[in-house]
Amino acid sequence: MTHSTVTPVNVAQIAWLNTMGISLARIDYAPYGLNPPHTHPRGTEILTVLEGSLYVGFVTSNPGNKLFTKVLNKGDVYVFPQGLIHFQFNYGTKNAVALAALSSQNPGVITVANAVFGSKLSITDDILAKAFQVDKMTVDRIQAQF
Amino acid sequence: MTHSTVTPVNVAQIAWLNTMGISLARIDYAPYGLNPPHTHPRGTEILTVLEGSLYVGFVTSNPGNKLFTKVLNKGDVYVFPQGLIHFQFNYGTKNAVALAALSSQNPGVITVANAVFGSKLSITDDILAKAFQVDKMTVDRIQAQF
Amino acid sequence: MTHSTVTPVNVAQIAWLNTMGISLARIDYAPYGLNPPHTHPRGTEILTVLEGSLYVGFVTSNPGNKLFTKVLNKGDVYVFPQGLIHFQFNYGTKNAVALAALSSQNPGVITVANAVFGSKLSITDDILAKAFQVDKMTVDRIQAQF
Amino acid sequence: MTHSTVTPVNVAQIAWLNTMGISLARIDYAPYGLNPPHTHPRGTEILTVLEGSLYVGFVTSNPGNKLFTKVLNKGDVYVFPQGLIHFQFNYGTKNAVALAALSSQNPGVITVANAVFGSKLSITDDILAKAFQVDKMTVDRIQAQF
Amino acid sequence: MTHSTVTPVNVAQIAWLNTMGISLARIDYAPYGLNPPHTHPRGTEILTVLEGSLYVGFVTSNPGNKLFTKVLNKGDVYVFPQGLIHFQFNYGTKNAVALAALSSQNPGVITVANAVFGSKLSITDDILAKAFQVDKMTVDRIQAQF
Amino acid sequence: MTHSTVTPVNVAQIAWLNTMGISLARIDYAPYGLNPPHTHPRGTEILTVLEGSLYVGFVTSNPGNKLFTKVLNKGDVYVFPQGLIHFQFNYGTKNAVALAALSSQNPGVITVANAVFGSKLSITDDILAKAFQVDKMTVDRIQAQF
Repeated sequence: MTHSTVTPVNVAQIAWLNTMGISLARIDYAPYGLNPPHTHPRGTEILTVLEGSLYVGFVTSNPGNKLFTKVLNKGDVYVFPQGLIHFQFNYGTKNAVALAALSSQNPGVITVANAVFGSKLSITDDILAKAFQVDKMTVDRIQAQF
Repeated sequence: MTHSTVTPVNVAQIAWLNTMGISLARIDYAPYGLNPPHTHPRGTEILTVLEGSLYVGFVTSNPGNKLFTKVLNKGDVYVFPQGLIHFQFNYGTKNAVALAALSSQNPGVITVANAVFGSKLSITDDILAKAFQVDKMTVDRIQAQF
Repeated sequence: MTHSTVTPVNVAQIAWLNTMGISLARIDYAPYGLNPPHTHPRGTEILTVLEGSLYVGFVTSNPGNKLFTKVLNKGDVYVFPQGLIHFQFNYGTKNAVALAALSSQNPGVITVANAVFGSKLSITDDILAKAFQVDKMTVDRIQAQF
Repeated sequence: MTHSTVTPVNVAQIAWLNTMGISLARIDYAPYGLNPPHTHPRGTEILTVLEGSLYVGFVTSNPGNKLFTKVLNKGDVYVFPQGLIHFQFNYGTKNAVALAALSSQNPGVITVANAVFGSKLSITDDILAKAFQVDKMTVDRIQAQF
Repeated sequence: MTHSTVTPVNVAQIAWLNTMGISLARIDYAPYGLNPPHTHPRGTEILTVLEGSLYVGFVTSNPGNKLFTKVLNKGDVYVFPQGLIHFQFNYGTKNAVALAALSSQNPGVITVANAVFGSKLSITDDILAKAFQVDKMTVDRIQAQF
Repeated sequence: MTHSTVTPVNVAQIAWLNTMGISLARIDYAPYGLNPPHTHPRGTEILTVLEGSLYVGFVTSNPGNKLFTKVLNKGDVYVFPQGLIHFQFNYGTKNAVALAALSSQNPGVITVANAVFGSKLSITDDILAKAFQVDKMTVDRIQAQF
């Protein structure tokens, strides 16, 4: 378990947000809780820490794949550009809370590990073994977790 | 090696494509060559097989994470919606070639494995171990490949 | 004095928010503090109460001019559609805090009373007397406050 | 009475203007007629004087609140950027006519005085007294006109 | 000569119309004057007749190629959707004047006959003969007029 | 006959391309086959030659009306900006094939000669005679071909 809970407020919850171009999500992090690497295919995110501290990061696209990280404390703000892989990690021993606003009423979420190793049906282990440069047994073992 | 080569034609190669809202990429696949799971953060892709056959797929966003796949032969067309994780695999013994058009002059590419396990600097193995539900040694071993 | 303070985070503060399509503002309300009737000409606002309670409202466009109001407590969320006149009022005896996200990196703010009665130079009192259906002396008296 | 009449041609009158991104309004001004301070929440306006002369103005957003004004004669053209408060005044003794084109099929209109002092239900006089820096009796008196 | 004169008001004349999403053109028609078949590649047009009468028309795209026409008198309004071929003809013996608003600050104009038969350099008569299903001598004769 | 065949893949064929912002067309050219001068009112086109060679061109908008042309061989790519008149001609003795991607799911096609001389009902020959600077008999003769 990654011990973080996302409570979204977007067009799926509130139909009249349609065409408004904005949505929200509240994220609650248990101690050592992770909002694992994910993307929003249709929105940029601006995140504000409401309680606790978070270690956050995102990775730029090809060919750089540069990792940017920062420790955010209560009141700090950070931006994750549209479609880039990003995460937040509560490395502390207290709960943390953040509010994320997104530039679409329907930004979408793709949790990378779940989409790649936990899809229904599974992506064949041949393909994942080549992509992640591991043997198929390792792929099978990871897939079994999801 | 995944044995596929992407030759892009976008605003980075041709400046006056700016504001045109479209770009291309030619993809050459060796036998058993893979264009590994990746996303385009700013564009939908429409792919046409020019030579050979390809096994292609994409995974929908949360919470479904449904995998859609199809075998495409010469002349077949397929669409990968903006920001979704997708791949193409040349499962045959001959070369394959495809032409991908994208709905932006600057669609971007994020190869998932490289962004997650091969970023510069590395994402800490703590976080990836939790996200992919494996031990840190496995993470370290995967990271060492990139 | 209306005793509310707005701390914006938009493209004027952070240049690389440009093209991101989103911005933030933190609003601090003293007891009985008002964020007076205003519009954002280029953005929809989604407001979250972080501390205290707020009485909020917005007015629809012509011909209805219908007032919608609600009392928001900590954690409540409300939406003010682009360009509509809206306000928040801390009717309690404690401080209140809210976080507003807007669907543009450059949403703009027009405080209605200041723009109409406090512009530099002044709008001629003839025009304001006709528009607000009062005598010119009342207009002059209001203008003198700004 | 402000003695100006607006005849709109937008998506509410002609449904197939939908998605066309443009609309019109013809405005007829009696002598001394005012099109009072208002905004269009979803469109920029370009105005052409067809008959007579008009004194026009608009106020920039916070913090400047600068008033720009100009006298327009027959054939003159002026632009009111999206969402900014603007007005036209026929200061002469003859009728005037103008044609306004707007950059949306559904630009909307908010007449400031009506939205603030004439909403249904009324905005509480506490709030308006604070916003306009007048006593509540003055607010009540203005509200009674609408 | 087609005896109509277009006076544009767009971003080429007024730089700060940029991003405003709207522009204008005044069109003066001599008796029997034609604004010949043309398109606006980046804007829908809404036309108002200010003086005289006009016979106007536009043709839908493939495969229909249906012609819509109407006689417009003073005060009448008509819409030409983006990119469609359209024309206005002053079939009367008096001058006519119209005001055209367009849904872009940079809509562009392509006069079909001039672009096809009057380009610099010329389109080879082979191609035009095939396209217009006439012999090359007819093409050459038309090209010589431009 | 112009001896070229267009096979489109857009929202009219595949409804779920809606909102995707992209479409395709495959074009087959017989020897000496022409895709005659046409425009796409809602999309930029990027063309790739798959087989054979093509002589292609487009004409800029007013006032320049400049013709740009190029010979494209297998694998070459060319761009036709939105709304501009363009053509492709297979000047060789073998078949040619091209793939065109367009920056809209619904780009539209207007074949200039057909829209102008072959519309249903016909544009009156008076207007076309003036526009193309030929006598009415020539117009009638061209119209009779369509």
